[in-house]
Amino acid sequence: MTATIIDPSAVATEFRNSLRKEIAALPTPLRLLGLISGQSGPAHTYAEYTRRGCEEVGVSFELKNVARLEAEASVAAANADPNVHGVLIYYPVFGTEQDQYLRDSVDPGKDIEGLHSFWSRCLYENRRFIDAAQTKKAILPCTPLAILKLLEAAQVFDPSAPRPLEGRRVCIFNRSEVVGRPLASMLANDGAEVVSFDIDGPLSFSPGAGRAAHTVHETNIDRQAALAQADIVVTGVPSRSFERIAARELRPGAVCVNFSTFANFESDVRETARVFVPRVGPMTVTMALRNTLRLYQNGRG
Amino acid sequence: MTATIIDPSAVATEFRNSLRKEIAALPTPLRLLGLISGQSGPAHTYAEYTRRGCEEVGVSFELKNVARLEAEASVAAANADPNVHGVLIYYPVFGTEQDQYLRDSVDPGKDIEGLHSFWSRCLYENRRFIDAAQTKKAILPCTPLAILKLLEAAQVFDPSAPRPLEGRRVCIFNRSEVVGRPLASMLANDGAEVVSFDIDGPLSFSPGAGRAAHTVHETNIDRQAALAQADIVVTGVPSRSFERIAARELRPGAVCVNFSTFANFESDVRETARVFVPRVGPMTVTMALRNTLRLYQNGRG
Repeated sequence: MTATIIDPSAVATEFRNSLRKEIAALPTPLRLLGLISGQSGPAHTYAEYTRRGCEEVGVSFELKNVARLEAEASVAAANADPNVHGVLIYYPVFGTEQDQYLRDSVDPGKDIEGLHSFWSRCLYENRRFIDAAQTKKAILPCTPLAILKLLEAAQVFDPSAPRPLEGRRVCIFNRSEVVGRPLASMLANDGAEVVSFDIDGPLSFSPGAGRAAHTVHETNIDRQAALAQADIVVTGVPSRSFERIAARELRPGAVCVNFSTFANFESDVRETARVFVPRVGPMTVTMALRNTLRLYQNGRG
Repeated sequence: MTATIIDPSAVATEFRNSLRKEIAALPTPLRLLGLISGQSGPAHTYAEYTRRGCEEVGVSFELKNVARLEAEASVAAANADPNVHGVLIYYPVFGTEQDQYLRDSVDPGKDIEGLHSFWSRCLYENRRFIDAAQTKKAILPCTPLAILKLLEAAQVFDPSAPRPLEGRRVCIFNRSEVVGRPLASMLANDGAEVVSFDIDGPLSFSPGAGRAAHTVHETNIDRQAALAQADIVVTGVPSRSFERIAARELRPGAVCVNFSTFANFESDVRETARVFVPRVGPMTVTMALRNTLRLYQNGRG
């Protein structure tokens, strides 16, 4: 077997084409504000990707370079400005816990990254709408949502099923508050049995009964056992010292996704996996744009 | 000069005596729930201090040992229980960013530690009441509040003045989100000029105009210059490798407070300082009890 390689740019293009049409039909031009601190680094690359994504879908994008101590006031001004529809902060700003404070200072109604604790709570509690009439969808965090859409593109599940990931086993290496934990929760809320590893060890995320939120449990499963049974393997380990996942560890036919900037898989996985997604980036930006549209629609509802 | 040594237990006793009377006069017995995960460590010591503090002031205290994965559900149950007046979580629970999520899951109306982002925002914006009628005081975080009360005991300012710390220069070594940053903000809101050091360098916190919140600025001041001008020096560096502050660095007559479990001052500071406060712990617990009473009063207002 030789794995199909999914290029996230190609999947992103389909989403962007569809977004462009929807955005062009809006009565108001959408406008995003990006806040960045410092002169170089990966944050600038991500901002450049955002600019291109915005151009492609017809959203106007302003990137403002701010001193770290000005960031909070800039967020407050953007929150209050009816002509700003979404705010993106490029981290690190302080590079300390204060960045989390900053993240929660964005109005959830403009938080197109879906990282505000308001949205985290919706996700963890499996609340999919923010209004009783169920017309306003909750926002999902960009990178986990991007990964879900890439798994959909890999045809590993039927998105129209009530619990699309029912019966799927997933193994995730990363349990950060911005990607790994929300991703494990999302997939378990959709029916998957997930083993989530971080530096402290594994936890298992299991589907709840019916529409109930997933539950989380301690587990002693090790990497080998978790990988051997996984239909889907997602990695996001930001370290060269991580022992890359090799073909011999995988269940034949597994779908593998890496969202780390480091290679977390050995190149031989392409011989054992059915699908390999080497990076996620372009889809993350696209999902932020999709969230912009959704938040705009929620605000008008 | 030989410094006066302030024992925080003695100051705490005065507060506890007064709290005991106020609490005894309440129509309802106050009840605290402590949540702790794991079998030993400093968290257990802090919980034991809480138990003693509660006994002294007549508050009932239940310490519940929970698995880390049960903590969130226990918080939710305590939030919903009208017979629980305050919730204390003994960290670490997860030992990751998830602890911050947990911290924000406590109902602000029961967050006697004053660590919820709701209270942080009040403090950073210098909003001292949570209602328009100004009958419900905002809660301040325990350790910064404990330090302020110890400085008051050191008679370094007049607490009845409109801006009690006007003209005072302060130097703080620690800018964590739970102590150093809120402390610098509180003192600047009260009129002090503060230089705050952390591992990344200094920032200055200055009083705002009138009742406006403090402002924060970049600064190039170094340790020597900041210490030489400081009327008040507060340390909270949790590391043996920190170069302890020596007498020769201090302005004669300075008031020195250490809240770290490590000694951050050389012993010779007792010859140069006017007041030395070697630890803060008993006052932290006492301020949590004071916050319990205040939150109860806010709830009845």
